[in-house]
Amino acid sequence: MGSVTDPGLLDAPERVQTTLADYGARVREAVRATLPAARRPYLDDLVRDYPLRGGKMMRSCLCLATARAFGAAFEDALPTAVAIELLHNAMLIHDDIEDGSDERRGYPALHRLHGVPLALNAGDTLSLLSLRPLRDNQARLGPLVAFRLLEETERMAWESAEGQALELGWRHDNRMDVSDADYLTMILKKTCWLATIFPVRAGALIGTRGAADVEAFFRFGFFLGAAFQIQDDILNLAGDARYGKEIGGDLWEGKRTLMLIHAWRRASRSERARLSRLLARPRESRTVADIAWLRELIDRADAIEHARHTAHGLAGAALREFDVLFAGVPDSPDRAFIGGLVTWVLQRVH
Amino acid sequence: MGSVTDPGLLDAPERVQTTLADYGARVREAVRATLPAARRPYLDDLVRDYPLRGGKMMRSCLCLATARAFGAAFEDALPTAVAIELLHNAMLIHDDIEDGSDERRGYPALHRLHGVPLALNAGDTLSLLSLRPLRDNQARLGPLVAFRLLEETERMAWESAEGQALELGWRHDNRMDVSDADYLTMILKKTCWLATIFPVRAGALIGTRGAADVEAFFRFGFFLGAAFQIQDDILNLAGDARYGKEIGGDLWEGKRTLMLIHAWRRASRSERARLSRLLARPRESRTVADIAWLRELIDRADAIEHARHTAHGLAGAALREFDVLFAGVPDSPDRAFIGGLVTWVLQRVH
Repeated sequence: MGSVTDPGLLDAPERVQTTLADYGARVREAVRATLPAARRPYLDDLVRDYPLRGGKMMRSCLCLATARAFGAAFEDALPTAVAIELLHNAMLIHDDIEDGSDERRGYPALHRLHGVPLALNAGDTLSLLSLRPLRDNQARLGPLVAFRLLEETERMAWESAEGQALELGWRHDNRMDVSDADYLTMILKKTCWLATIFPVRAGALIGTRGAADVEAFFRFGFFLGAAFQIQDDILNLAGDARYGKEIGGDLWEGKRTLMLIHAWRRASRSERARLSRLLARPRESRTVADIAWLRELIDRADAIEHARHTAHGLAGAALREFDVLFAGVPDSPDRAFIGGLVTWVLQRVH
Repeated sequence: MGSVTDPGLLDAPERVQTTLADYGARVREAVRATLPAARRPYLDDLVRDYPLRGGKMMRSCLCLATARAFGAAFEDALPTAVAIELLHNAMLIHDDIEDGSDERRGYPALHRLHGVPLALNAGDTLSLLSLRPLRDNQARLGPLVAFRLLEETERMAWESAEGQALELGWRHDNRMDVSDADYLTMILKKTCWLATIFPVRAGALIGTRGAADVEAFFRFGFFLGAAFQIQDDILNLAGDARYGKEIGGDLWEGKRTLMLIHAWRRASRSERARLSRLLARPRESRTVADIAWLRELIDRADAIEHARHTAHGLAGAALREFDVLFAGVPDSPDRAFIGGLVTWVLQRVH
């Protein structure tokens, strides 16, 4: 390494942008090298599509920075970083099918382009592909650390599937009696494990060659990831064109967000009945007027403010965890990046 | 082991039945122990459903018998056998969604019971669960053999996804210009890798503690698996209630089988046009009369006879491969089971 400017010369948001750009470009290059050539009909083009659309690379950069902060070389963590991005994209393909999403990163969702059967199969293939760099870890990190990382990956994917099941189940049964705590449990599993908890745990394992107590990183990852997800939900409702997904898409999908939960809590009896009927209908039968009414209900409840407030509380808790976890870790651009991420997740616009 | 009767006392089909029942029961028990308790809402019940519906256990028994024939203990191969059944069931969940199938093992397909989103997510979780026994291999077989088995698993899943993409793609584009050779390439990937090639390769690796040349087992697996798949297609068309899937389901799905390909080859110009129009329409719009006409076209072309003939040729080739591969392997119930499978796949009725 060494291409990153001195930490003292950059403030936190700049540090984050610089690292995301720098590490992100290298991960993107390694992901590209791992993807199959566009050879096999009905498969390779689909497998290559989402990873080549770009993306923030936050997950992989967090893993790389943590590994380096704990003493690893960039190349030690690169295969795991690649696996993270492949798995992330594989999950996006299946999530988009499950959520009936129309867009991803500014383009039509994969199943809108090729139909559900071929997109589903491409998601399976991409998730499979992530095993390859994890196997490669064996050569550089030894079989014990490589198996530990496989175990962490399995745990993470397991938690993600449980979170996805919870969210889909709520919609399937049209459940409205969901609390803020239920929501936080759901995103802990659905979002935080892949977005933040796994990257820091894996990074710490790589940096310490398996010696780290990964459980210590759980709360930092949860607080940071939850702030990230709530900000994502806010952007989905109130973001601009840079966001890359359809604005208001969550409302069309009937996604249980802090905002929707808060609006329900504040709603009158008749509004609750109307809301429940609206969300019981299939997505296709919802109208622009329905969505406008939903949005108005959210605004009247000051629900975005409530969500922002919660996200800021979580970010504060993440910063306190960071100070404890990284107290003995020498100052470095990587350490600064990890701490800077906490403010960045709230300031980002896409 | 030791519970299996002397090989000399049983003829080949009995040997196969006995081994499938005996080994199958133990694998089923180990699968049950690996499945999650029915705890997590919207997930565990769905994950447990297909594996607990039963199944032939042919894939896992073939792996166990090969491992034992090459000198392993039953317990050495049990985790891999469990992984095979978990992966098989995971793929069935996704295949049923992709094919729009209505039934599986005599009951509604999982997505018919719970909708596509939750079923898709349960398939992901089940496939993930198969990683656990593969990780466990490390303790008993050592890290090198365990990593080799992971590598073989990944290769197999990769081939399966490619085969699935081919078949789905043919239907997606309504391609009719598919030859018998194209069909064999497709089932080599879609069926044979999981059903037969991977089980014998993995079994040989376990039995020889990584020393086997797995490539030598490729042709035996292909010939056996292809005979198995063609017989499956025949049963789907001409089987009875014991088959467990809807009879004629492949016709409703427009699946490119040897029979359909042969009927197309023998059809007149106007029949081809009608066939192509029929298959271009979505499954839901096909009528009982359409399917009856398709069936008549297949009968007039003697297509079932053509498929039977091909399956018998493949089984003969599999037997020759078996004789070469197992020439130096001492006679045993396991060896007899593997050889007996070749006739069994053609005689089975479900």
